[in-house]
Parts: sequence; structure tokens; C-alpha cells
Amino acid sequence: MNSISLSIIGFGNVGKGVAEVLYAKNRYFKEKYGAEIKVVSISDSSATLWNSEGINLEEALEVKRSFGSLKFWGQEYEIYSLSPNEVVEEIESDIVVDVTNDPNAGKWHLKALKAGKIVVTSNKPPVVFYYDDLISISHKKRIPYLFEATVMAGTPIITLLRTGIPADSVIKILGVLNGTTTFILNSIENGMNFQKALKRAQELGIAERDPSGDLKGIDAAYKAAILHNLAFRPIDFDKVQIEGIDSLSEDEVRMAKKKRKPFRLLASIEDGKIEVKPTRIPIDSPLAVNGTSNIVIIETDLLGKLIIKGSGAGIKETASGVVGDIIRAIRIQKDFTF
Amino acid sequence: MNSISLSIIGFGNVGKGVAEVLYAKNRYFKEKYGAEIKVVSISDSSATLWNSEGINLEEALEVKRSFGSLKFWGQEYEIYSLSPNEVVEEIESDIVVDVTNDPNAGKWHLKALKAGKIVVTSNKPPVVFYYDDLISISHKKRIPYLFEATVMAGTPIITLLRTGIPADSVIKILGVLNGTTTFILNSIENGMNFQKALKRAQELGIAERDPSGDLKGIDAAYKAAILHNLAFRPIDFDKVQIEGIDSLSEDEVRMAKKKRKPFRLLASIEDGKIEVKPTRIPIDSPLAVNGTSNIVIIETDLLGKLIIKGSGAGIKETASGVVGDIIRAIRIQKDFTF
Repeated sequence: MNSISLSIIGFGNVGKGVAEVLYAKNRYFKEKYGAEIKVVSISDSSATLWNSEGINLEEALEVKRSFGSLKFWGQEYEIYSLSPNEVVEEIESDIVVDVTNDPNAGKWHLKALKAGKIVVTSNKPPVVFYYDDLISISHKKRIPYLFEATVMAGTPIITLLRTGIPADSVIKILGVLNGTTTFILNSIENGMNFQKALKRAQELGIAERDPSGDLKGIDAAYKAAILHNLAFRPIDFDKVQIEGIDSLSEDEVRMAKKKRKPFRLLASIEDGKIEVKPTRIPIDSPLAVNGTSNIVIIETDLLGKLIIKGSGAGIKETASGVVGDIIRAIRIQKDFTF
Repeated sequence: MNSISLSIIGFGNVGKGVAEVLYAKNRYFKEKYGAEIKVVSISDSSATLWNSEGINLEEALEVKRSFGSLKFWGQEYEIYSLSPNEVVEEIESDIVVDVTNDPNAGKWHLKALKAGKIVVTSNKPPVVFYYDDLISISHKKRIPYLFEATVMAGTPIITLLRTGIPADSVIKILGVLNGTTTFILNSIENGMNFQKALKRAQELGIAERDPSGDLKGIDAAYKAAILHNLAFRPIDFDKVQIEGIDSLSEDEVRMAKKKRKPFRLLASIEDGKIEVKPTRIPIDSPLAVNGTSNIVIIETDLLGKLIIKGSGAGIKETASGVVGDIIRAIRIQKDFTF
């Protein structure tokens, strides 16, 4: 039986979701993939829990739930104060799992790969701004760099582009990649005002406390850039044309819906060119999604149009992508990937 | 530069499509994947062309187009009369590509794997009736057995189930997997009678000369069984419940459409249970596809519902799956798969 050790960096919603899935499906994974997954460290913003024998995930989740931070864990584990950099350097583990929002995480992703550690991440900026360096070191050292959960949560758009259609040349990708804006547009279409729609999205955990990344189209643009990087080649993010839904009035949004051509925040991706902007979509087009559903239409030379649609957000749904990458990494490590 | 050699067995529409894509995109594949793909033999039902230096695909396609059979090729290549079994035994190649409809091909697939040859196939019965043996020898010998084109042509449903969602447990799969029946139902819905609709489908190359496999639901059932084998475990095909569209009257089909709940040949797949039967689908459901589009909805524990929709037939579209598998095999061989 293989044993594989993880350092989880970040213990917010995504990190907790990952720990929950690893805990709940531990036996399933062991039976199906012949691998024992052991979490040797978990870091939140205030503390790092570290036990090379493996952390009891049920207890870690309970401490986080009850006390809000891992630093209140005073029992049999040592509590450390380590930066992500230090976690990568000092803690022995096979996979570094970055489920933070650290915009500078690319630096410690590179450090991890150079040290021979697999990196699995749901954190978008590194895959946007450090893609070239990360992929070239990953290829050179043959260490997987995996980021399924950065786009469409666990809906496997990354795996699809990476290994699903290798004989095809991608011509164009269209996608609705940000569920928060669709949720807010839906609420406005149904008569709510913008402020209330935003507040409701925040209460439901769909929008972040600082919602500007979603509303201004930055989040969708990051995701579009990641798809571009995979389908074509690394793009300079400064070249991405971005317009958010904050440019729309409530009246415009409602009128568009009434005329059966509602606005959605559409990303259009071609080789060397990305546009993200509110776009009117015919109501019977598959792109006219609702709620937190995401959709991508890929146009290629051989297949014509290929559609993948699924959840673009949610705790379990994002954990599906992160844990999926962990399992893909194990299967690659075992040299047994088909 | 890697060089990889293929024996293509079968030179009907799929085989010709594969040769065309390999010819047209040869340079693209060389640059992108660093591999030289060389076809060392092509077999149609009457002859085998064999040249260990690599066959000129443009000429082979031209001979087939002009004379209908490879046996009329009298030039610099030797023409042989070999069974698939003999091709596998006697011709040295890295990958055996089965694009025949041979229902007993499972036997020579096994032989190829045992001899250390990768198998890529668009031929369904082996993956239905020999799955257990094929996969266990493939795993034991670590030789890829790949069959993306057996379901939904090149639309990557097989890759998705194989490596796209490894953290998820599949609960249920619903799919419209046979484009021929949808095309015929569409034609009847639009006023054509069944005989004429079938004839038109045959003229367009959408239905086979013997259409019973499509009309009686056998083709869809094969595809459903393959998805079951991947998502759950090998199923005994005798247990699959099958009803074809030949049980429907023209009036029923038209009335159902008029009431906005048209019939489609729906496959429902759960662990240990498969049903294929004409089912009335609400017109606004994604399952109410038209033409030769295929769709699958996968329900899992973490992701909820995941939809993939794309072409389910066509020469280029099927070649996409077969050539895609050839490239996946090369990447696995190079031990560089992520």
C-alpha cells in the first residue's frame, strides 16, 4: 500500500471541505486507489498543526469549527507559527495543497516543485501569473502541477483540456465562469435591487466579503486566462479585456431578461485574445445558465462544439477538484495513469 | 524524438478518418507532443498493406478512394492476406488500432496486450464482453487499453470517467448515446414516415446498411454497458434491459413532440442496473437533444450533476477519439502524462 503525505495550506471553506472529503472517503480511496492519504500538516492564517504520523482530521475540523482557529488546539499536537514558505521548506510531505487566496503563492509553488514536491492548488493567481515558470519546472522535473479546482470547481474542464482532446486543435472557448455574478443577475432579474442581491449572495457564502473581484470581472478573467494558458499558450494578463457587471444598471438587466436575451458575464477566449464582458445571451442558448452553474463551450477542428456544464462553486464541489488532483497525483506517482 | 508505430486494422469510414487526421496533422502532433507517428500496416477486409518504414497515408487513402480496396495497390508496397490475429502476431508495431466492427475482436485485443502492444479501439463489443480480462491484463502488464471513440465519438466521456472525477463516487448516469435514433425521431417528428427517415439517414451515412443495432437499442446498450464498466464495475450484458425505438408508432412520436415531451432513446445507468428505452423527455431538458448530438448527465456525491454534450458520430469526430487515444498512449509511454 502506497502512503502519500499532504501539507494543506489554507483552512477556510475550501481547506475544510478538502479535509472533510479526505476524512469521509478515506476508506473508499484506500480501496479504490490502493493509497493511504495522510495529512501531516494543516496551516490556517494563524497557526500550523504538524504531525508527521498524520493529523486526525475529524478533531482538526472540530477545533476549527468550535474555536475558529487551529492555534487553540492545545492537545497532543505541536502548534507552529510558519509561513507557507517555511511549511514548504521545513515540513516533509509529498504534496503541497494550496487552498489559500495568497496572490504571491506562485513563489512558494515554484519552491515546492524545485524541492520535488507535487503542487495541487485551487488558488488562481499563480496559474495566471507564474504559469510559464511553473509548467516548465514541472515538466523538467516531472513533478505534477495540478489545478483542476481553479476553474469551474471540480467540474473537470482542466482535465478535459489537458488530456481529453489531444488530437484536436482548439479554435475558440466561450464560457460563463463566475457563478456569483450569474446569481446576482438572476436576483436582479427577479426584482431584487443590486445591494440586496449582493447582500443575499454574501449571506449564502456565494459572494466574498470583498466582492469586487467577482463584480469587476477579475475572477472570470483569471479563469479565462487559465483556460487560455492550457488551450493555447501563456497569455500576458495585461492584455485581457475586462468589463464587470458593475457597469450594468438594474433596468438594463431586467429589460434584457424580459426580451429573452439576459445578460451573463461571458468570457471569450481565442489564441492570444481574451474578452470578459457582460453579454446578452439568447435565453435558449446553453450559455444562458442560472445560479452557480458554470458552462464552457469548446470549439475545435475535429469535434466541432463540445459542451461541459456543472457546478462552478460550493464547498464539496471545489473539494472534488482538489481531492481529484491529489488522486491524479498519486496515480501519476504510481506510474499507472491510464 | 520518439517514434511510435501503428497497425491500423479496418479501413472503412473510421479507419480512413484516422488516416486522414494522422496525415493532415502529422506536423502539429510532432511539434506539440514530440512524437513521430508512423503507420506500418493498414488492413481492410481484403488485404493488408505493410511497410515497416511507414506507409504513405495520402497514397493509401487515394488507392482506397479510387479502387475501393487496398488489394489493388500494386506499387512499391507488398500486399498481404492476413487475419487481424496474424497482423497482431506478425507485424511489429507499438499500437494496434482496431477500427473494425469485428464482434470477436476481444480475442486479438487480449493477444496484443499479452504481447506488450498498446490497444486503441473504436469497436464496442470487446469493451462490453471482454472488459474484465482486457483491463486486468492491461493493469498487470501496464499496457494501455484505450477506447475513447466507443462512446460519443471523440467527445471525451471516457477520459472524463477515467481520470476527470476520481474523488467522486458516481451515483447515476443518464445519456442519449445513439445519434441515429435521434435523427430518425427528428425526421418523423417533422412529418416524414419511418421508412423514408431511415432511408435518408442511410443516404447521409448516419445509419448503417443493417440498421437493426441502432433501432433495437443494441448500440446504445453497448455504450451504456461501457460507461457502467468504467463508472462502477463490469456488468453482465444479459442483464441490460433494452427496448428500441422500433416499438414506437409514428403517431406516438409526433404526438409526444407536439406535447413538448418528445421521445428519445434514453440510457439509465446505475450500479448493477442498466435500462435503455424510448423515454419522453421534457423539451427544455438538456436531454432533449437533436440530430447526432449525444449527451450524458453524470450525478455524483460531490459534484451533483455534471453534463457533457457533443457530437456522437461523424468521421472527423470519431477520428478525434481514436487519434486522441493514440496520443494519450504516447504520453503514457513517455511517462509524462500530467
